[in-house]
Amino acid sequence: MALQDRLGRNIVFTLVIRVLGGADPKGTLIAALRDSGVKIADVELTEIEDSTNNLIYEITLFTTGDEQMASARKAADGIEGIEVVEVIDVAMEAHRGGSCRMVAASPIESNTDLRIVYTPGVARVCKAIEADPSLADEYTGINNTVAIVTNGTAILGLGDIGCIAGMPVMEGKSAIFAEFAGISAIPMLVDTKDPEKFVETVCTIAKTFGAIQVEDVAAPDCFYITSELDRRLDIPVMHDDQYGTATIVLAGLYSALKKTGKKIEALEVCILGAGAAGTAISDLLIKAGVKDVVLCDRYGAICKGRSNMNSAKQSLAGWTNKKNLQGDIAAAIKGKDMFIGCSGPNLVSKDMIASMNDEPIVFALANPVSEISRDDALAGGAAIYADGRTMNNAIAYPGIFRGALDAKSKVIDIPMMMAAAKALADIVPEGQLLPEMMDPKTHQTVSQAVMKCVK
Amino acid sequence: MALQDRLGRNIVFTLVIRVLGGADPKGTLIAALRDSGVKIADVELTEIEDSTNNLIYEITLFTTGDEQMASARKAADGIEGIEVVEVIDVAMEAHRGGSCRMVAASPIESNTDLRIVYTPGVARVCKAIEADPSLADEYTGINNTVAIVTNGTAILGLGDIGCIAGMPVMEGKSAIFAEFAGISAIPMLVDTKDPEKFVETVCTIAKTFGAIQVEDVAAPDCFYITSELDRRLDIPVMHDDQYGTATIVLAGLYSALKKTGKKIEALEVCILGAGAAGTAISDLLIKAGVKDVVLCDRYGAICKGRSNMNSAKQSLAGWTNKKNLQGDIAAAIKGKDMFIGCSGPNLVSKDMIASMNDEPIVFALANPVSEISRDDALAGGAAIYADGRTMNNAIAYPGIFRGALDAKSKVIDIPMMMAAAKALADIVPEGQLLPEMMDPKTHQTVSQAVMKCVK
Repeated sequence: MALQDRLGRNIVFTLVIRVLGGADPKGTLIAALRDSGVKIADVELTEIEDSTNNLIYEITLFTTGDEQMASARKAADGIEGIEVVEVIDVAMEAHRGGSCRMVAASPIESNTDLRIVYTPGVARVCKAIEADPSLADEYTGINNTVAIVTNGTAILGLGDIGCIAGMPVMEGKSAIFAEFAGISAIPMLVDTKDPEKFVETVCTIAKTFGAIQVEDVAAPDCFYITSELDRRLDIPVMHDDQYGTATIVLAGLYSALKKTGKKIEALEVCILGAGAAGTAISDLLIKAGVKDVVLCDRYGAICKGRSNMNSAKQSLAGWTNKKNLQGDIAAAIKGKDMFIGCSGPNLVSKDMIASMNDEPIVFALANPVSEISRDDALAGGAAIYADGRTMNNAIAYPGIFRGALDAKSKVIDIPMMMAAAKALADIVPEGQLLPEMMDPKTHQTVSQAVMKCVK
Repeated sequence: MALQDRLGRNIVFTLVIRVLGGADPKGTLIAALRDSGVKIADVELTEIEDSTNNLIYEITLFTTGDEQMASARKAADGIEGIEVVEVIDVAMEAHRGGSCRMVAASPIESNTDLRIVYTPGVARVCKAIEADPSLADEYTGINNTVAIVTNGTAILGLGDIGCIAGMPVMEGKSAIFAEFAGISAIPMLVDTKDPEKFVETVCTIAKTFGAIQVEDVAAPDCFYITSELDRRLDIPVMHDDQYGTATIVLAGLYSALKKTGKKIEALEVCILGAGAAGTAISDLLIKAGVKDVVLCDRYGAICKGRSNMNSAKQSLAGWTNKKNLQGDIAAAIKGKDMFIGCSGPNLVSKDMIASMNDEPIVFALANPVSEISRDDALAGGAAIYADGRTMNNAIAYPGIFRGALDAKSKVIDIPMMMAAAKALADIVPEGQLLPEMMDPKTHQTVSQAVMKCVK
């Protein structure tokens, strides 16, 4: 069950209704709901009320949002024999109370348990670690703990909404770390827009953690923050929006190369969006051997001598766009073999895809609405199409961190990400571009590939 | 089963032995173990090996430490028909991998689950919080999360062993928070001895949390750190070593007053140890109405005009010791009604207790070895005796934080701690000084008492 469809119905509600005893208005209800525009994904009978024989149904609906849901509710309410009990906002409910939490590793069931986990028993563990700090890897959770640090400046595609509004994303990532990789991951809201203060704060608390995942920090500050943390700390640091995304793109590319027979060293790539993701993808793709990458931002191709470029983009102009192409995205995409979008909705047309080389690879990753829809991309001649739903970072980062922690690596570096991408491409099931995220083997494969890179 | 006995045998090992088929050396073994000085706490038959009929026993031993355990092992090894399989260090094993960890609040079992906990579903939750930040209380875990912050400068009675060696204590506290109060508590190692940097760092990450527990930070820095955090943040801040301990002492005092018939307003108290705990206990006891408190440190009574006093102690001299008593602990304790020790092992003699007023109350809280043993205190005439095992902070702090979070209090203040102490004293079972820590009612009682104090 996908959470988004081509009509943009990606907000899920559960409509709970009571069908009064004896009534049989289901046909009428289904027609009325369809007329309101929602998609009916599931209908479940959850209760038969005693005495009355009233039936309680839970109906899962995909909608475009609150307004459509309100009209669906009204439609249901107007049918004789039906009472609306409640409307449940599924995503909101799933995050009620937070989607991750700290628990005791073992239950405390007696005073003896307590006196082992805490004083006086714990003193022995402290003294052992004081005498030999390397024992902390074994007798604390530090080496299985990742900080997910954000300042809330680039939460999903929502922008700078502040770190508290970004907390559900951090908690969701923590839940994914726990479920897919057995990692204890701590959301950490670092409430500053001063990059130096961000770095200093994280360094001061870094001994708590075995690794740092930088998350949803806006470019260009994310470049300084990630590289400084990496330089100052002796534990792995990765900005997921940069290199988690880049790893998935490279995995998808390796997979697409197998399907199309194209050669990486002949590949010319156009990337729309020169922020965190676009920059890291350029770096990883060039190191993996693509022929050239041209990045575009809202002002057009990043090239030497252009105005409107911060220092990060000036640096990009030095190591991308070998021919120093100028012009807008329509000019930059022409004759390219691959398009990667890390920008916003509907910025690429069918004609632009048609202007690319034969059988182009199109990864349109903007969330929640892509740069170009699958239908338009295929109509423009795309041989391979993927959007942000397929290219999910959660395929890569849990295994990358698992591998880095298990191998006690001090870094997460380019060879590790390339190895992860190759390993992912090697286990792609027939008919897919990437392995299944829910399959534990996916994450084990990544972690093993990463571990092999650690000396 | 206590983890400490009067012979100081507080290190627990499990001796795993194989008794060879047909042999019956148990009597010999028990005698040999006793001769080595250990206490046998439990013997369990855990396996009968196939074919051979060898028996595997796990024997729980209380010991004074590694040396005594080594001789016990040697004694067992020397007995015919017995092979030692292994010796398990119980406290170390309990902390292997850490005693707390972050988990997903609900399992992620499908792509749908994933797309609700993470993108695209999570975006809806983020946008709702962006529009109304107060929704973060409901749709994130922030208001159920407590940071346990330390710089490792006063870990248990072990002193400045560094924050990494202190991690097992923080993890243990987190496990206790989870088990006793359902609170998600995050150990946070703040690696600085600069109090201002400590405060600044915690303030920068404070939006992650609903409350802050300062833990095992040495005096006098802990005073500045706690009061500054309290001043700058709009969430509750409590230094457990100060006011968690003070709350328990006041609860124990209320309970002791009931048993002895003494009146709080007539009570003169001598405290040995003028650090974090001693200072906060003085504050809380004076606010609760005791007549006077005289604190002693290694240089004697804290009094006006004394040398060797930092600014925190100079301040103490202004609001304790009304008669401006001078002299050492032997002079200060004379004629007092209550002694409280927050210092080190064996610093108080039977004669000192005998020099106190009739039927004195003695709380000798130094860990792991008290200022005076129960036997000596009783021999000196103590009417009530408690040590650090009885007066455990974990009776108070989980409920205090639970109550403060549930009531959305911005502080943990003196009235809340007094209410917690009174409520604890009201539910003490016959024959005890404090309620049972393992009883959920203990923590519920504290939390309800605290909530009632929040306007």
